[in-house]
Amino acid sequence: MAAATEANALGYNLKVDYVIHYNFKDPSKSHAVAQLEKLLQALAHAGLQIEIRQGDEESLLIFVRAPKKQLNRAVYQSRVRDWLYGIRNTEPEPASSIEPHTEAERLRVIEHMMTLPTAEGGVGITPNHGEWKNVTKILPLHDEETNNKWLHDWSQKTFLSEEELDQIRDKFGESLGFYFAFLQSYFRFLIFPAAFGFSCWFLLGGFSIIYTIVNSLWAIVFVEYWKRQEVELSCRWQTKGVSAVETKRREFVPEKEVRDDATGEMRGVFPATKRMQRQLLQIPFALLAAVGLGVIIATCFAIEIFISELYKGPLKSWLVFIPTILVSALVPTMSAVLISVATKLNDYENYETNEAYDAALARKVFVINFITSYLPILLTAFVYVPYARWIVPHLDIFRLTVRPFVSKEHVAATDCSHFKIDPNRLRNQVIYFTVTAQIVGFALETVVPYVKQYAARKYKEYNQKHNNVNNDKDSPEHSPVRTYEDPEEEKEFLKRVRNEVELPEYTVTEDLREMCIQFGYLALFSPVWPLVPLSFFINNWIELRSDFFKICKEFRRPSPLRRDTIGPWLDNLGFLTWVGSITSSALLYMFSGDSRTGPNGEPTDIKGWALLLSIFFAEHIYLIVRYAVQTAMARVEPPNARKERGERYLMRKRYLESTLQVDVNDTLAEKDKVIDNPPALTREALEEDARRNSEHSTDPAERFWMRQRGWTESAKIGSGIIQSQPTKSEAKKKQ
Amino acid sequence: MAAATEANALGYNLKVDYVIHYNFKDPSKSHAVAQLEKLLQALAHAGLQIEIRQGDEESLLIFVRAPKKQLNRAVYQSRVRDWLYGIRNTEPEPASSIEPHTEAERLRVIEHMMTLPTAEGGVGITPNHGEWKNVTKILPLHDEETNNKWLHDWSQKTFLSEEELDQIRDKFGESLGFYFAFLQSYFRFLIFPAAFGFSCWFLLGGFSIIYTIVNSLWAIVFVEYWKRQEVELSCRWQTKGVSAVETKRREFVPEKEVRDDATGEMRGVFPATKRMQRQLLQIPFALLAAVGLGVIIATCFAIEIFISELYKGPLKSWLVFIPTILVSALVPTMSAVLISVATKLNDYENYETNEAYDAALARKVFVINFITSYLPILLTAFVYVPYARWIVPHLDIFRLTVRPFVSKEHVAATDCSHFKIDPNRLRNQVIYFTVTAQIVGFALETVVPYVKQYAARKYKEYNQKHNNVNNDKDSPEHSPVRTYEDPEEEKEFLKRVRNEVELPEYTVTEDLREMCIQFGYLALFSPVWPLVPLSFFINNWIELRSDFFKICKEFRRPSPLRRDTIGPWLDNLGFLTWVGSITSSALLYMFSGDSRTGPNGEPTDIKGWALLLSIFFAEHIYLIVRYAVQTAMARVEPPNARKERGERYLMRKRYLESTLQVDVNDTLAEKDKVIDNPPALTREALEEDARRNSEHSTDPAERFWMRQRGWTESAKIGSGIIQSQPTKSEAKKKQ
Repeated sequence: MAAATEANALGYNLKVDYVIHYNFKDPSKSHAVAQLEKLLQALAHAGLQIEIRQGDEESLLIFVRAPKKQLNRAVYQSRVRDWLYGIRNTEPEPASSIEPHTEAERLRVIEHMMTLPTAEGGVGITPNHGEWKNVTKILPLHDEETNNKWLHDWSQKTFLSEEELDQIRDKFGESLGFYFAFLQSYFRFLIFPAAFGFSCWFLLGGFSIIYTIVNSLWAIVFVEYWKRQEVELSCRWQTKGVSAVETKRREFVPEKEVRDDATGEMRGVFPATKRMQRQLLQIPFALLAAVGLGVIIATCFAIEIFISELYKGPLKSWLVFIPTILVSALVPTMSAVLISVATKLNDYENYETNEAYDAALARKVFVINFITSYLPILLTAFVYVPYARWIVPHLDIFRLTVRPFVSKEHVAATDCSHFKIDPNRLRNQVIYFTVTAQIVGFALETVVPYVKQYAARKYKEYNQKHNNVNNDKDSPEHSPVRTYEDPEEEKEFLKRVRNEVELPEYTVTEDLREMCIQFGYLALFSPVWPLVPLSFFINNWIELRSDFFKICKEFRRPSPLRRDTIGPWLDNLGFLTWVGSITSSALLYMFSGDSRTGPNGEPTDIKGWALLLSIFFAEHIYLIVRYAVQTAMARVEPPNARKERGERYLMRKRYLESTLQVDVNDTLAEKDKVIDNPPALTREALEEDARRNSEHSTDPAERFWMRQRGWTESAKIGSGIIQSQPTKSEAKKKQ
Repeated sequence: MAAATEANALGYNLKVDYVIHYNFKDPSKSHAVAQLEKLLQALAHAGLQIEIRQGDEESLLIFVRAPKKQLNRAVYQSRVRDWLYGIRNTEPEPASSIEPHTEAERLRVIEHMMTLPTAEGGVGITPNHGEWKNVTKILPLHDEETNNKWLHDWSQKTFLSEEELDQIRDKFGESLGFYFAFLQSYFRFLIFPAAFGFSCWFLLGGFSIIYTIVNSLWAIVFVEYWKRQEVELSCRWQTKGVSAVETKRREFVPEKEVRDDATGEMRGVFPATKRMQRQLLQIPFALLAAVGLGVIIATCFAIEIFISELYKGPLKSWLVFIPTILVSALVPTMSAVLISVATKLNDYENYETNEAYDAALARKVFVINFITSYLPILLTAFVYVPYARWIVPHLDIFRLTVRPFVSKEHVAATDCSHFKIDPNRLRNQVIYFTVTAQIVGFALETVVPYVKQYAARKYKEYNQKHNNVNNDKDSPEHSPVRTYEDPEEEKEFLKRVRNEVELPEYTVTEDLREMCIQFGYLALFSPVWPLVPLSFFINNWIELRSDFFKICKEFRRPSPLRRDTIGPWLDNLGFLTWVGSITSSALLYMFSGDSRTGPNGEPTDIKGWALLLSIFFAEHIYLIVRYAVQTAMARVEPPNARKERGERYLMRKRYLESTLQVDVNDTLAEKDKVIDNPPALTREALEEDARRNSEHSTDPAERFWMRQRGWTESAKIGSGIIQSQPTKSEAKKKQ
């Protein structure tokens, strides 16, 4: 295997830029062949190099590589487009001398060569859509060696350096770069609350007012810091303004075609008012989500209280698991249903651009996540604790369900009078969501899919072998599916490619959502248990590595996307800090100080007006502080943003100077002579004046402007007037 | 006077573009003469035409006109600058064929020729500053004829048309254009609440919940509408992005000089952190303002209550005026003091750009205005009415003051037990501020200055005549101040110019502030008396005309300024609607329904928690609705914004097409031939292949890419693979 290792060292992926996965099963073979020819011709005409290998039983792998010349031209076009949209400041150098700066740019440009519409200079391949239905996937190949090296390096350090973030961006594009930069910033920022929270927990316990204030302030500063950091990074990575360039959604269904007055082109429009009407459906949807999830969560919650605190019948040690099982089974199911409803709703809203579509979907998903993640704790804090005395007796209804299974004495024993509010329930719940659930999430997200994939591959291999053994009897061929045997030296490579093609597609949204929800626990509930930031700090060290592992091993390599923000999740972070100011102050008022706890464990002297007043003040102080932090942050310009501004300024200055110079040079010397030495008052000049005066005598304006010739004469007259005025001392003397 | 009327008809202002007011009293005559020569030479070198006349005893009038050629060049430069800063979309046509589009552009460009720094192609005149201390004013001349015509036209119609707003902008620049457009939008928007408020007042009286909701909603919609309208107008007037171009403040004192890494130039910097420290002084300042004004207002208020409702002594009918007189005298004085402190503070904060300076000052002025305008009503509503029972007895202290003047029986008669809260006080106060104060304001702002000016001119004329009579005895000259007699035909013109030069400078901020405060009454207190919008509707019809009258007659003509917004006042409008949601809900809860009124006129059953809960809900509903309205509004693109976007798009498309074309044309035909017909598999070609293969045999990547020659071969192999796969039916058969 000397050749293979050499290949690893040289061009690990045999210099393949993209692999197109071409499915030929649907609708018919002849159609597939015709389409394949069309596709290959189009690619070849765009100047791309092609190789074809077999994929699996129903697909081909089309390997694509862009030769230097074509690539450079495409890079040039892409940069010109950037320049026109104001993403670049400087007009790009000519096509002949241009080079892609990074692997991500190279891949992005090549993908654009294939997917941009023909009018914009691309081939116009639209995977899974329209006439290109057979093209199911377009993917670059993982650079496993580098990936493994990074994984190894990162596992031995605490923070990623700026250069390492740059490397991620260079390899995977700005979209992933922004995610990892965010994760890294968040992780780094967590040091402070982790340390401070630990001290507070040690010295002051839960519900400390100092911790709450510091925590809120920290959350505000972090969100505002990240906003600045986005500007900084987008300047550093030259993607500032990229999100302003919106891309048309392919699925957009225009209501009518309209001639655009400004551009003169026909374009499909969908009336904004109609879309707004459709968007109104979000209100019933949010209500549905709240009620649907709320009922499930509240019921399970009630069952749990009933079993754990009222029920004294048999099997109690087993029954306590029922609510947990119910929640684990029902909530994800309900969420999945709601998310599919949300997607349908979002499709129905018929957005014109991908950006608007994604933002709208993110909003809806956030509502669902907010409810599933925070409602249980909110219920405990603001319903169970203050109202348990009134609610618990009503849980009798569950006794009806239990009765058939339990003897009479046991039923009688479930007596409400003994009921006592569990003072640790709130804390335990917060610990569950911020520690246990995070670990479970990690397992579900990273470990389980890996195991599943491994098992699936093994199963497939076994199946194939089994089939082959069977087929051996029927046909002389070694294997019917391997008509074209892979060349020996490509075998390993092709096996890897076939595996990668099978992997699911990675979307960064999912990971961002997870971080955003995690941040929410911190902003909303960490006063309950100040170790929350410490737990997250540890968790996120792993999170960053495991996310990278996940991307490298469990997903196909994502096409590089350009971004200048983490998108709608940023707004959600801001929103969560806001809600946090309300919940924290309310929690603090209700639970701080032990004296408040009554005989049954519930806080006794909660006064409605005092609670509301603390919320009112906390919220408005939050808003004022946020405003102050925003203004302060806006003043400090991050280094790359300043650099970018400087470049723009210089470019303008150069251009302006050149236009000024042209004008100044042409007649300067000659003009100055005339200006400084107007024609002397010779006889001819006077006659000329008189003539011109009489000519223009009908126009008082011309006469007005003819009185003084040149600035020297004006100066003479002006100084005459000045000299003739009495100075103060003269004026006094006169009097 | 035939010539004068003719001048009116032709070029009313004798084609004068600008008048420079040159003061030669300070520091000495010789210095003044030298500076004058320098000034005239600089102006002449910039290509401007000059005439000099005498101003008054200590000043010269320098008339400036820009000849066509120089003007066109300056217009070109200005447009290139706009283009570089992204204000224009299209590169301007060459200097020779360019013309200023409007009078405002003409004047703006000429002013820039005089005031821009020499590095940017101007003369660099800085009025009242540095070496140009003698230049005290630079002003264009009023076009009285047009002004009078417009005043006359507008007095006969309800709304200004879009064309009339364009005309204002064409003549006075975008800054004034935006003010009048705002005033007009506001006025037009007031129709609805005026009508609705009138019906509510007639049918439901004050404190109607329907009116309050509608009013808040209206305020939100109006503010958001105006934000859209700003975009629309800035596209229409081609000033979009103008506020991003910041101008350096001349008074800025850098702490140190630093070489800018990006531009390589030295520039003065002032550390942002230091400025922030200075800005912290705003907090004590705001407290000072609140306390200072609060004490005055509260004291006068207490005195008023004491006199009007407790005091029964002699002279009561006269004494009731004392608090009014005190307020009228003390509040403006205190405001003036505070504003001068605010200005000092603002200077101290040492802003780098004029925009930042103005915004910071506007913020401070807004705080002062907020207190002076709304505090009296807030005191009545939220202190006097609920707490009068406890406070009024303490007003006894005033009795001590009164005692010396009053007989003992009278003092005894001031008995608190009879005290009854005046239920109409709140309403009367709102009426005072929204009707009476508006009328008084109009008089103070427009009528009084006009009368004062008229009187001052008469006095000056009288004085001069008087002096002349006196001087006649001393000297043979007719008048010592009129050394240079004006030519007969210019007399009237120069008299007018001398008058205009004397007028104060107009700033649009003052008028915007007034409107903003007015809007605040509407947002904060109109539920008390639903006729408020009707009163403002009538008032603003007059306001628009009187403001224009004021600008034309009582101020010198403002230099045209470009703006794309009404600036910080927009934020203040938003802030006021927010505060309005709080005050309205509180007022509504406290005062709606008569049943709440107790025996002494105070509302009896105000519950703290209920009040706070209504505020909490009202505020958050407000925020949600505002968010919804914002999103909805953002979707609807105003026509000119769409047009602007279309233009930008077309420009980009043209450019891109041209770059694509160049590339495509050069080798297209030839290339396609090669691509579609790769060299046939001749003996030579095969040998060549073999040779190349052996050459590259060490590189597996090259071997990989050499397997298929051209897309036709790939297609052949691909279709071979496809055909060789068993179809579903075949596969079934096999099994």
